[in-house]
Amino acid sequence: MRIIIDGFGGDNAPGEILLGCAQAVEELGVDITVAGDKDKLLACAKEKGVEAAFHKMEVLHCPDVLAMEDEPGSVLKEKSESSMAAGLRAVAQGQGEAFASAGNSGALTVGATMIVKRIKGVKRVAFAPVLPSAQGFFMISDAGANVECRPEMLLQFGLMGSIYMEQVMGVKSPRVGLVNVGTESHKGDPLRQNAYGLLKDCPGLNFVGNIEPRDIPYGHCDVVVADGFTGNTVLKLYEGTALAIVGMVKDIFKKSAKNKLAAAMIYGDLQGLKKTMDYNTYGGAAILGAAKPVFKMHGNAKAPAVKNALRLVRDCTQSRYVDKMRDALAGGSAGENEQE
Amino acid sequence: MRIIIDGFGGDNAPGEILLGCAQAVEELGVDITVAGDKDKLLACAKEKGVEAAFHKMEVLHCPDVLAMEDEPGSVLKEKSESSMAAGLRAVAQGQGEAFASAGNSGALTVGATMIVKRIKGVKRVAFAPVLPSAQGFFMISDAGANVECRPEMLLQFGLMGSIYMEQVMGVKSPRVGLVNVGTESHKGDPLRQNAYGLLKDCPGLNFVGNIEPRDIPYGHCDVVVADGFTGNTVLKLYEGTALAIVGMVKDIFKKSAKNKLAAAMIYGDLQGLKKTMDYNTYGGAAILGAAKPVFKMHGNAKAPAVKNALRLVRDCTQSRYVDKMRDALAGGSAGENEQE
Repeated sequence: MRIIIDGFGGDNAPGEILLGCAQAVEELGVDITVAGDKDKLLACAKEKGVEAAFHKMEVLHCPDVLAMEDEPGSVLKEKSESSMAAGLRAVAQGQGEAFASAGNSGALTVGATMIVKRIKGVKRVAFAPVLPSAQGFFMISDAGANVECRPEMLLQFGLMGSIYMEQVMGVKSPRVGLVNVGTESHKGDPLRQNAYGLLKDCPGLNFVGNIEPRDIPYGHCDVVVADGFTGNTVLKLYEGTALAIVGMVKDIFKKSAKNKLAAAMIYGDLQGLKKTMDYNTYGGAAILGAAKPVFKMHGNAKAPAVKNALRLVRDCTQSRYVDKMRDALAGGSAGENEQE
Repeated sequence: MRIIIDGFGGDNAPGEILLGCAQAVEELGVDITVAGDKDKLLACAKEKGVEAAFHKMEVLHCPDVLAMEDEPGSVLKEKSESSMAAGLRAVAQGQGEAFASAGNSGALTVGATMIVKRIKGVKRVAFAPVLPSAQGFFMISDAGANVECRPEMLLQFGLMGSIYMEQVMGVKSPRVGLVNVGTESHKGDPLRQNAYGLLKDCPGLNFVGNIEPRDIPYGHCDVVVADGFTGNTVLKLYEGTALAIVGMVKDIFKKSAKNKLAAAMIYGDLQGLKKTMDYNTYGGAAILGAAKPVFKMHGNAKAPAVKNALRLVRDCTQSRYVDKMRDALAGGSAGENEQE
């Protein structure tokens, strides 16, 4: 299996990306194509001491870089020679089986839609990160690809999320919940009320009803369905609140010699908690609904997170979840080339 | 000053409500009117050993109770003889200067709008809790009263929140931020884009632009402006995530004798953190835009939280923030008796 990776996406590119790829090539049994400027990649590989592993990878040479602050639409226009755009084209043309980037999420979403294209019947792709909960993990679908949504889009976000969680993450009959301001079916605005009805009536979907945001951290459902605005709010507030509180606990432990001693006594358990709540554990976000596996790694991913992400990309490409979504959505009303 | 309180609102009514009122009567220099069934209140006061304080309060007798699961609109119809409805009518008629309830938030919002009525020019009231941050505290305006909003409503939520934070909470030139999926002015849906323009152009408002949810816990702004759906999501996810993580830390401390010892060593600091993050510290939520001060106490408030809330109600009623909002909104396009 060949995975194409964006060599110049993310805060730590290309160094940590190359380091992660070097580990993946040696340990994961995958072939890697790195998209980016060939000379710069080679120089970086030498600097990082992974030249031998680098020569086992292919390079898809392209001169440009799409930055975090670039407009999402630039992936189709002024940044069409960037490593992200070139990588997306390569996977669309079958030069690899999956694409992964730690770069600009918005551009990756646009590129997945317009370059890789959607599975036939998919109205919109969903940005779908898997996050740690107090109980295990859960997915948000959609966490930011679509700030404005219709009820039938929310239905598809739930359906695609459910297939992914079952096929890739091994969750049996995933519990799908709709983020809402109350648990009763009539709660929320018309978008929520109508989506509730569609989700409830969808055959084969284990819809558990509305989920209140306060229950999300406890893992009350496996797939948290939301419009992209709400899902993005949940994603960012969840990360921010967890970091803020962990930071406050850390401050307590640094406050005095006595407190430092107390911290040392429970060091192992604190590290366990830190690992439990590390959003790199689950490797990032799938762009659900794209016709090929497309993945967003965390923007600040370092080499171990890159390697973890590539393992996930390998496993889920092997699971053929895209084919399963294609089967589930066959007969949908919106075609692969739908333009909105 | 006389404060009218809902004797039968909240999870711990009437016992904890009466206990908190008894402390307030003795310590805060306020007069209290308790709305509720007179016989039941008296029996409860005897049982709790606060009969003497109870006889210093007035009772607004009413037979019925509006429950947490009742429809918000019931405060105007089938539950119009409830303690909440009777209390709201009493404050509207000037029998007291402010009203506080730990009961059904939705019903309180409807009652504030339809019974107490709005300040002239206010389009919609906002449910506006003050919450602890890592730096101090912040307000969400609106945190759930209006699931569907127009841009000019978001402008008013920001304006009313700013006045409250300055007049009542003592924040100079409060920083007002709009919850959005990115910091740039063009981010988000048309509601956010248009609200951004209105907030930016509002004279005297210290609008600091869009705020991403991950920055909310760090206290990057004093007034977090949102539509009620988003604001409610922020409120509930923030509380839920904080509780979940504190719960995980607690579990670590209980795990072994060694861990218990470590916990004992930093007990005082942990209590400090717990107090910092306690949502009862700031006493609840104002219903901004109502023509008289109306307050929601936390549904699970116990006696100390009830007393704290009554202190806040006293202080903010003295601040005459409602008059200041009336002045600021004079000349608005929507009248006090507007029905929507």
